[in-house]
Amino acid sequence: MNPNSNRFLSALAITAIAAVSLNSCKPKGAEAAISGDAASKVYVAPGKYDEFYDFVSGGFNGQMSVYGIPSGRLLRIIPVFSTFAENGYGFSEETKPMLNTSHGFVPWDDLHHIALSTTNGEHDGRWVFANGNNTPRIARVDLKSFRTAEIIEIPNSAGNHSSPFITENTEYTVAGTRFSIPIQGNPDVPINTYKQNFKGTISFVKVDSSTGHMNIAFQILTPGVNFDLSRAGKGKSHDWFFFSCYNSEKANTLLEVNASAKDKDFIMAVNWKKAEQYAKAGKGKMVPAEYAHNIYDEVKHQATSTIEKQVLMLDPKDCPDMIYFIPCPKSPHGTDVDPTGEYIVGSGKLAALIPVFSFTKIQQAIANKTFDGTFDGFPILKYEAVLHGEVQKPGLGPLHTEFDNNGNAYTSMFVSSEIVKWNIKDVKVLDRVPTYYSIGHLSVMGGPTRKPYGKYMIAYNKITKDRYLPTGPELAQSAQLYDISGDKMKMILDFPTVGEPHYAEAIPAEKIRNNSIKIYKIEENQNPYAAKGEAQTKVTRNGNEVHVYMTAIRSHLTPDNIEGIQQGDVVYFHVTNLEQDWDVPHGFAIKNANNAEILIMPGETQTLKYIADKVGIFPFYCTDFCSALHQEMQGYLRVSPKGSNVALMFSTGKNYPAVDTTTKTVKP
Amino acid sequence: MNPNSNRFLSALAITAIAAVSLNSCKPKGAEAAISGDAASKVYVAPGKYDEFYDFVSGGFNGQMSVYGIPSGRLLRIIPVFSTFAENGYGFSEETKPMLNTSHGFVPWDDLHHIALSTTNGEHDGRWVFANGNNTPRIARVDLKSFRTAEIIEIPNSAGNHSSPFITENTEYTVAGTRFSIPIQGNPDVPINTYKQNFKGTISFVKVDSSTGHMNIAFQILTPGVNFDLSRAGKGKSHDWFFFSCYNSEKANTLLEVNASAKDKDFIMAVNWKKAEQYAKAGKGKMVPAEYAHNIYDEVKHQATSTIEKQVLMLDPKDCPDMIYFIPCPKSPHGTDVDPTGEYIVGSGKLAALIPVFSFTKIQQAIANKTFDGTFDGFPILKYEAVLHGEVQKPGLGPLHTEFDNNGNAYTSMFVSSEIVKWNIKDVKVLDRVPTYYSIGHLSVMGGPTRKPYGKYMIAYNKITKDRYLPTGPELAQSAQLYDISGDKMKMILDFPTVGEPHYAEAIPAEKIRNNSIKIYKIEENQNPYAAKGEAQTKVTRNGNEVHVYMTAIRSHLTPDNIEGIQQGDVVYFHVTNLEQDWDVPHGFAIKNANNAEILIMPGETQTLKYIADKVGIFPFYCTDFCSALHQEMQGYLRVSPKGSNVALMFSTGKNYPAVDTTTKTVKP
Repeated sequence: MNPNSNRFLSALAITAIAAVSLNSCKPKGAEAAISGDAASKVYVAPGKYDEFYDFVSGGFNGQMSVYGIPSGRLLRIIPVFSTFAENGYGFSEETKPMLNTSHGFVPWDDLHHIALSTTNGEHDGRWVFANGNNTPRIARVDLKSFRTAEIIEIPNSAGNHSSPFITENTEYTVAGTRFSIPIQGNPDVPINTYKQNFKGTISFVKVDSSTGHMNIAFQILTPGVNFDLSRAGKGKSHDWFFFSCYNSEKANTLLEVNASAKDKDFIMAVNWKKAEQYAKAGKGKMVPAEYAHNIYDEVKHQATSTIEKQVLMLDPKDCPDMIYFIPCPKSPHGTDVDPTGEYIVGSGKLAALIPVFSFTKIQQAIANKTFDGTFDGFPILKYEAVLHGEVQKPGLGPLHTEFDNNGNAYTSMFVSSEIVKWNIKDVKVLDRVPTYYSIGHLSVMGGPTRKPYGKYMIAYNKITKDRYLPTGPELAQSAQLYDISGDKMKMILDFPTVGEPHYAEAIPAEKIRNNSIKIYKIEENQNPYAAKGEAQTKVTRNGNEVHVYMTAIRSHLTPDNIEGIQQGDVVYFHVTNLEQDWDVPHGFAIKNANNAEILIMPGETQTLKYIADKVGIFPFYCTDFCSALHQEMQGYLRVSPKGSNVALMFSTGKNYPAVDTTTKTVKP
Repeated sequence: MNPNSNRFLSALAITAIAAVSLNSCKPKGAEAAISGDAASKVYVAPGKYDEFYDFVSGGFNGQMSVYGIPSGRLLRIIPVFSTFAENGYGFSEETKPMLNTSHGFVPWDDLHHIALSTTNGEHDGRWVFANGNNTPRIARVDLKSFRTAEIIEIPNSAGNHSSPFITENTEYTVAGTRFSIPIQGNPDVPINTYKQNFKGTISFVKVDSSTGHMNIAFQILTPGVNFDLSRAGKGKSHDWFFFSCYNSEKANTLLEVNASAKDKDFIMAVNWKKAEQYAKAGKGKMVPAEYAHNIYDEVKHQATSTIEKQVLMLDPKDCPDMIYFIPCPKSPHGTDVDPTGEYIVGSGKLAALIPVFSFTKIQQAIANKTFDGTFDGFPILKYEAVLHGEVQKPGLGPLHTEFDNNGNAYTSMFVSSEIVKWNIKDVKVLDRVPTYYSIGHLSVMGGPTRKPYGKYMIAYNKITKDRYLPTGPELAQSAQLYDISGDKMKMILDFPTVGEPHYAEAIPAEKIRNNSIKIYKIEENQNPYAAKGEAQTKVTRNGNEVHVYMTAIRSHLTPDNIEGIQQGDVVYFHVTNLEQDWDVPHGFAIKNANNAEILIMPGETQTLKYIADKVGIFPFYCTDFCSALHQEMQGYLRVSPKGSNVALMFSTGKNYPAVDTTTKTVKP
């Protein structure tokens, strides 16, 4: 018997879901009937392409994964918040600044959510955003290069969970605190003064419409709740943003019981247009706030990190009519806006029904002041006044809802391990299918946009157990693909995922594939250490710092012999890949490095820092099989004792060694 | 025009493969006809299992990947030589020692080859070995837990490429130097004294037949060539090991030209039984050699790293009849032994034919001294005397050969991007299929064993280009699955892979799946910092070192509030997962850590080190979605200024805070 199950059940009991045991994940019913043509529906024959790119958050791996749908094949892992030995991200001198934060270099984060950029509420295929949950951050990946282009830290925050959801024209990407903490003022307070001292914030990060560059426009101070998820309005609700929050009890211990005490928590509705006006009108004030802002320049092929020092904070006390609270049963996770922008679906993970709110009614209730008291001084809209309807008996543990192009909604049910399809207008349940097991988020193709594509839906499950061949105690997580083109949902594929597939967004392949770049043009390379031809290769010394300007091209590293390095030298290998062909990266590694390798794309320069701490001969080589003579693409570094009289010299192989002891910069 | 192509072509011209351009990867012929039932052949319906586990090296990502075959689904990435933010490998205190080396902590390596353990030459499903190419090492993964159990460094080596191939009963796993270097003696010599001063070694690492523990039995000093791959004999050739070598020219610069000067390089045949006898007879000597030996204990849940100081070296001058050289055209990559042990196939990557050597003839040539001179003092066997036959016109750039259960061989052709099937007995070509593009290794199910399973073959390609939807300049690498059950090979699936799928071995699922463990038993947990129940949780201080003995169980971390930490403290969070259910890991992360998270399997303890460098309130939480109330599985750490009078205290949530200022170790 799970020694904590009583505690857990007591929380559940309050919600009238008394008989649930999390230990029996397997739904009782038979598995969904597998249609005979499922194989042909998911099979992408050699030489053919998937229909959709699926951008999947990696959860606790800190990366973003790209899957092809319907095949479920992993097309690429894009490193975002975690170091990635595979291509040197976070190890090369050029990429290290991407992982800088206000408290130094951080090699990891917990990437939960994905937001593809939109124009008029439809995917435009330009960028994909992701949140860092542990060190509060938002990242932007450029979909031309599939590279992390920018990371901005969110100050006055802890647990950036309700993020990076975006407004319809990608005007803003948002960030809300999952954990409230002391904001400004004295940070060293007793934890049990939570109710007095702990606050939340939500941040609106402006996205430049042409470059994508992010800047924190303003933050809004909020009550000390836990924000979970959020969604922007659409169409008529364009000016609003909806944040789900739990722990309106403001508990600071035993949250699994104490944050589930009330019947209803809230969805917080924020009029961001009004907030924008308040910010412009000088209603906020600049407050001290240290946060890193990191940008990767794909022309210089290097990242820069700037530490910002203040941020504009709006106190809602000074900003009337900006924030309203909508009661929502109970500990809501998802707050999802349908394609028309009229309906807002709350998914109270401990609730036995799914409330659907009407934007029109919300506006009426605000106009008519149909309030039901206040929360921390903010008006609470009357539940019945803003309710469109309740989906009754949907299942247990509703978490998240997405939409198709035919007026249907699909809600994931964590506790009862199923997906429920229901009609938005009449809130009637239409169909249900099992998931294996314990689904978290789901994703309909284009599901959060104004024009969903439908066709496929994917369940991202939290528990895998027996779905695949076992791999010891640690298992891949389970995703399941459903055909939703007909009236009934049909499970057609199980596919495992890396990390935790927390959330995902899918986009038709044609919106991205033709803009995807294949190489970097060598003539545009502005890395200060680039050698744009073998004639530009050199080795220079400045004190104990040695710079090797190296080139890589099939099948040679130039220089391939280097001598005159002394023990204690710090050697920077700046390797430029001279190739201008698609898919001919080179790699570089050297023996005895306490570092990784670097992988250099055609036209690019990357730098590996090497501490020459031992005397001897250390081979280096290309790590990415590039040609029939890849294995011969190697060289040697000679490290002599400190004070040795071996002069700095290097070779392109023609007339080595050649020494010019006057300049200490030697060319054969 | 590739500015280096003249240099490259001059090397190729010597080999009579003059007209090859690496830039045009796409074979001219039409793609292999896709059989109409290919979809059903590779489709594994939801709830069904793959037939084979495929253990795939990750190349430059340093990890090992496990794929299901025939679906091509990635079942798991097993971290081996590189840090892995996804589960805290190389970040947790328990796993950090696994990446220790003689030159400190190294966060990366280049994992090239896989060897599944065998008994009588057949897979026994116990362990899988992998080589570290950059820092010379061999790793052993335990197939009960799919965890890296042991890593041993190889001294007197550089570029451990021809590794970790094993003998028939897993008596030894071997390691040969890809790069020759100065071995013993003065390591600081001019690089152009290569011919005088640079040597190779091959190492025989004994594997304990019951525990799998590795120890270096002996090393053999060899000529200064580059060893590429190797294979043990089988059956009649059981006592022998065959190593391919290139750069018998002993060039030290411009290897793509200078190491391709000779018509033939060699396969080095080593009588390891004789070597073993010489070692036992005291023919070797102990030489200084610093190398790390790291073992992960799955009962203590922690790794230890020992630095060894010497190794037994055999000088072949003192060991007659142990080593012979077999001429092999040209720069051989693969040296592969057929299931009977009679035939050894050399794959000279610049050769226009594939030589097949006869073990019987090799023995006759040795007995009759049918030599053709010497290489560095070792007898060279006469090519014609040991040749079984030559596969004529197989294609361009033969790299690697595996075998089926019907007397057929399959050789990968890098330059002409194809696989050629041929009959071992009459060396006649039977079939050829294209690969997309530039295949490196291939893998037949059970292909390197005495009893191949056949049925499927996989091409691991080096160039991907247009095989999948584009993902910017960096692409996943391409694997292709072939049905080889009939006379003709049929391509049935493209599947992308993580890292570089350098080599792989596949094993029938039933040989592993029933031995795979699901949890660690909590009562067997011997981690000294384990709390085996919430009653055992505590927080202790010793100077500025604080130890938190924490438990995780759905849906609570105990303690969940901790105060009395002072700025500058080093806090160790020892988190024990109390769950005893399959697939209920918990994770742990804390804000402002300059570290990763940890992922803790049921019954296990893992430790995260946290430097309390800032004053404030820092939330911690479970990072692996575990229950409906996972989001509530959180707590707070309060860090006060140094010298603060806030006493050390913590909470299980019941009567917090409670303070005992006398002991500084406080329990409510």
